[in-house]
Amino acid sequence: MAVTDRAHAADLDRGDPLGPFRSRFVDAEPGLVYLDGNSLGMLPRATAARLHWVVEEEWGRGLIRSWDAWVDLPQRVGDRLGTTLLGARPGETVVADSTTVNLYKALTAAVAARPGRSTIVVDGHEFPTDRYVAAAVADAHHLQVRGLGADDVAGPTPADVERAVADGDVAAVVVSLVSFRSGAWADLAGITATARAAGAIVVWDLSHAVGSVPVDLPGAGADIAVGCTYKYLCGGPGAPAFIWVDRDRQAEMRQPVWGWFAQRDQFAMGPAFDPLGGAAGWLSGSPPVLGLAAVDEGVGLVGEAGMGAIRAKSEALTALAVELVDAWLGPLGGELATPRMPGRRGAHVSVRHHRADALVAALGREKVVADFRPPDLVRLGLSPLTTRFTDVWDGLDRFRRLLASQT
Amino acid sequence: MAVTDRAHAADLDRGDPLGPFRSRFVDAEPGLVYLDGNSLGMLPRATAARLHWVVEEEWGRGLIRSWDAWVDLPQRVGDRLGTTLLGARPGETVVADSTTVNLYKALTAAVAARPGRSTIVVDGHEFPTDRYVAAAVADAHHLQVRGLGADDVAGPTPADVERAVADGDVAAVVVSLVSFRSGAWADLAGITATARAAGAIVVWDLSHAVGSVPVDLPGAGADIAVGCTYKYLCGGPGAPAFIWVDRDRQAEMRQPVWGWFAQRDQFAMGPAFDPLGGAAGWLSGSPPVLGLAAVDEGVGLVGEAGMGAIRAKSEALTALAVELVDAWLGPLGGELATPRMPGRRGAHVSVRHHRADALVAALGREKVVADFRPPDLVRLGLSPLTTRFTDVWDGLDRFRRLLASQT
Repeated sequence: MAVTDRAHAADLDRGDPLGPFRSRFVDAEPGLVYLDGNSLGMLPRATAARLHWVVEEEWGRGLIRSWDAWVDLPQRVGDRLGTTLLGARPGETVVADSTTVNLYKALTAAVAARPGRSTIVVDGHEFPTDRYVAAAVADAHHLQVRGLGADDVAGPTPADVERAVADGDVAAVVVSLVSFRSGAWADLAGITATARAAGAIVVWDLSHAVGSVPVDLPGAGADIAVGCTYKYLCGGPGAPAFIWVDRDRQAEMRQPVWGWFAQRDQFAMGPAFDPLGGAAGWLSGSPPVLGLAAVDEGVGLVGEAGMGAIRAKSEALTALAVELVDAWLGPLGGELATPRMPGRRGAHVSVRHHRADALVAALGREKVVADFRPPDLVRLGLSPLTTRFTDVWDGLDRFRRLLASQT
Repeated sequence: MAVTDRAHAADLDRGDPLGPFRSRFVDAEPGLVYLDGNSLGMLPRATAARLHWVVEEEWGRGLIRSWDAWVDLPQRVGDRLGTTLLGARPGETVVADSTTVNLYKALTAAVAARPGRSTIVVDGHEFPTDRYVAAAVADAHHLQVRGLGADDVAGPTPADVERAVADGDVAAVVVSLVSFRSGAWADLAGITATARAAGAIVVWDLSHAVGSVPVDLPGAGADIAVGCTYKYLCGGPGAPAFIWVDRDRQAEMRQPVWGWFAQRDQFAMGPAFDPLGGAAGWLSGSPPVLGLAAVDEGVGLVGEAGMGAIRAKSEALTALAVELVDAWLGPLGGELATPRMPGRRGAHVSVRHHRADALVAALGREKVVADFRPPDLVRLGLSPLTTRFTDVWDGLDRFRRLLASQT
């Protein structure tokens, strides 16, 4: 059967071991093709129930007496996330603050651990907040920012990093494990080792990687990483982010935003800051309980499905998308802007087109939700727990009809 | 009628114009005397409904298409909070991040605006996170921290500040407008002017003040302030905090955590950080939508009641508590640790007792929820929208019975 035949996609859905997971999520709207689970994951039914419980019972009836259920959520949810999805050991991961704030903490700690070096490296194609945080930390510490010169589609390579850190003056490199633009999946171990050989620390941003590709941070020798929970982990709008610090580097790096949630024996309210050991020492203020509860449920669901099954389905989803882009959109001016090798990409696929902005708006009117990423990318997120193969087919079918009608 | 007569408290409840507001909140538990609304405000019924809507409809059905309803929540809720409760002009207030992170931003900006000065002042009785943030910023900028020498009950005065900044070497002073310990209400205008006369910037922490005492930040000549929303504003556990920056100082001070939510034309994703004008430039990462929606409802409720009525009731509630502490607890070893002048205190009352820790635990078993603050304070929070005069009477009645039975 031809890959362009909808029956082929329907066959893949019937054989999909993760197919039943779709019913664990709230159905948004009949006929909606949601290809944006990498911007905001769908709402798990269990999360809606958990949030109702947290609001009505824990807050409404328990009031401050629910404190014991809340106070260590950053560590508990962090450990669950870390041990399930990052290869982390207990005590290496916490969930709190935004990705931006966590990046700021991580990068500030990294440059402080490399005194005398004057450069931060971040690629020009990196996500805006990563670039802005790099600029902020550079400004505060009188450092310079250097680009990485990575290819916009292939993403950063160890060779790119080797060139960028060659002068021995680089304190830290900020790299996304999966590019928010092309979906390129970077070489975690290779880039970490290359940077380390020149004395630089890599701050990894796992925002588009966690829950979409298998990750083993300790196994790759990584030092520190942050990431987002409202994409593949379905933590809901603005859910708190995570930070992971390798247990062997925790003594070497110190975060800058000291607060009462990082304090040993918090309610002794002692005179001097005396941080908890492990990742808990990277906390700052009161944790957002509603968001944490939602992340807890989302991580549980991803863990239940298993990263093996998720990755297998993800490769098949993106493979179908790549084939349909080539077959249908290529002749109409839509060019694949994602690595073709399955092992080199995450769970989204981007299509380059000079009218990408208008196309995403038009797709929305056809009930296909995708993202525009300037200047010329249509980004299709294929979140494995909620995207059906027929969603990929339907979305790209409507995409090609739009292109055909407009050319 | 004697103040120690329960009928007196019942009379006050009958005459309370804010009495009907109690029914706007979820009833936690029959017979519970909740004197801890200054740790965590009760759950407004409207907030439960709003959160249900945000989760099920905006997230569940709208998915990322609800972005337009979310993206400017930090500014919208911030302006609502600021214009209703802080005397702020539009564009001076945002709600996002924790109080700790906002303190860090504010204090970092303040010391950077006073180059060449080597001292941060913070009182030893300040809330832990305020002291730890002061230590962190001092550590990062090679400054020293100096105490204020304020009285634990009366709180910091302009005279304390005048002494502390007299050498002209102080960059910034961190002061809580209402002390988390004694409830002392500091002189906003007097302390600000005293510090400014010596060239120092006051970073005000309004965590225990917002929604409990009338505040006019521009009228007092303040520069910058932060505060908590889960106390008197009933934003729920870990709800995001606010930061206010006087519009005339915004050009002079720059926050350190640059992120994509502070970026002008955010989705152009431009190469360089180019912050939005006004308080929006103080944002960093993705805002916690659930918490923001809850803060929005809480601020609305406080605004509906009006700070005039809230303050009037608050003075009456704390006056009743002070009278009962004197009459009942004084003879049993419980000493008032809150200013006696109504105009010098916020909305909570503290009682000093050498067995405060055990007493708070015992009160909890008697269904009276209060806070222990080390080493020797029992803190009674009398949140005006939810605390009845009979709650004050019942709570202190159980308190005196406990003391009497144990002595």
